[in-house]
Amino acid sequence: MKIFPRSYPSFNLIALVLIALMVAPLITDTRIWAQDQPAGNIKVPKGTLDAVTAILTRRSIRDYTSRPVPEEMIKLLLTAGMAAPSAFNERSTEFVVVNDPKILREISQVNPASLQLKKASVVIVVCGNQNKEKNKGQGYWQLNGAVAAENILIAAHAVGLGAVWTAIYPYPDRIPKVQKLLNLPAEVIPLNIIPIGYPGERKMQENRFDPSRAHYNRW
Amino acid sequence: MKIFPRSYPSFNLIALVLIALMVAPLITDTRIWAQDQPAGNIKVPKGTLDAVTAILTRRSIRDYTSRPVPEEMIKLLLTAGMAAPSAFNERSTEFVVVNDPKILREISQVNPASLQLKKASVVIVVCGNQNKEKNKGQGYWQLNGAVAAENILIAAHAVGLGAVWTAIYPYPDRIPKVQKLLNLPAEVIPLNIIPIGYPGERKMQENRFDPSRAHYNRW
Repeated sequence: MKIFPRSYPSFNLIALVLIALMVAPLITDTRIWAQDQPAGNIKVPKGTLDAVTAILTRRSIRDYTSRPVPEEMIKLLLTAGMAAPSAFNERSTEFVVVNDPKILREISQVNPASLQLKKASVVIVVCGNQNKEKNKGQGYWQLNGAVAAENILIAAHAVGLGAVWTAIYPYPDRIPKVQKLLNLPAEVIPLNIIPIGYPGERKMQENRFDPSRAHYNRW
Repeated sequence: MKIFPRSYPSFNLIALVLIALMVAPLITDTRIWAQDQPAGNIKVPKGTLDAVTAILTRRSIRDYTSRPVPEEMIKLLLTAGMAAPSAFNERSTEFVVVNDPKILREISQVNPASLQLKKASVVIVVCGNQNKEKNKGQGYWQLNGAVAAENILIAAHAVGLGAVWTAIYPYPDRIPKVQKLLNLPAEVIPLNIIPIGYPGERKMQENRFDPSRAHYNRW
């Protein structure tokens, strides 16, 4: 007995329906996969460096021109910072954008060596919110904040901006001053201040690859 | 009295020499500036994602295919890690590349939850060398290591590899086990283990932008 005799009319129909059921999810798949263009309203500016070049050619930029940094660039940098991974996906990092000239002037006095802060018209203060940590006091907010800050530094360089990590943590004198100036709650610790601006200095590339820092299988 | 009468023959000569002196450094400038292609022997693979897309679309990849990771890709990732900034430019971060199947098997048992380590044929262990710290015991090697690790995670995603931060620090039980397995000196603390491989899983993008984490001028 043939189960599917060639002349049986609904065999082709069944096959068609099965194929349609298999193909349909593929052509109607509107989900955004990790390799696609970024989700949300972030448009990648033209001329953005590729990630490898951006990472390898980034330098600390401490002088900026007076050209204002567009608001959408700050949004892009905040989005980059928030895209960083975090321990237990706790997302403990918070960001304070400062562009008020009065606060900028006061904040530049927290660390007298940070002359770069005086030249920037906008800075991002990267903070760790200890209330959002799942395991407190073990150093997680610092790691979460550091990777978020690195995202901001790379993204800034990639889109033609200059930036630099200006340490607040772990300085016991600087932390309370910044907390007071920005009205931060006690559990929110400023990790660093990143001034943002169009580069006012041109720096040479540095090839930091050092084979003595690479080890294979055992020390 | 004319200092430079039009008919004075050496005037044009002097002008020419001055112009030549000014122009010469510009056309003979072979230095590599920070916006150029990367220095060293790093070639940016075709199809590398731009930095903004790479940062915004990166996900933690915990499953890998058996396709081997070329040696030059590991070199690229190490170079990316070493290009990260560090406190006082102390470059305290060291990298241990593990591809020995025996050590990989042992290392995957340090954290029983880290099943991803069993599937990777190569991992990079990011360590902080406390002997290279200019100010010890203040948390700098952790920050230096975190930004180096983030560079590796972004670069891996940008060139089509998958990777994930698997924590060793701050777990007091995991640190000595990894130190023993890799024969690390006591002052070299493993921060994390990053398994590297071609993605064996496909993950959706996550838009992590959260306006409640962005603050303006004051909290």
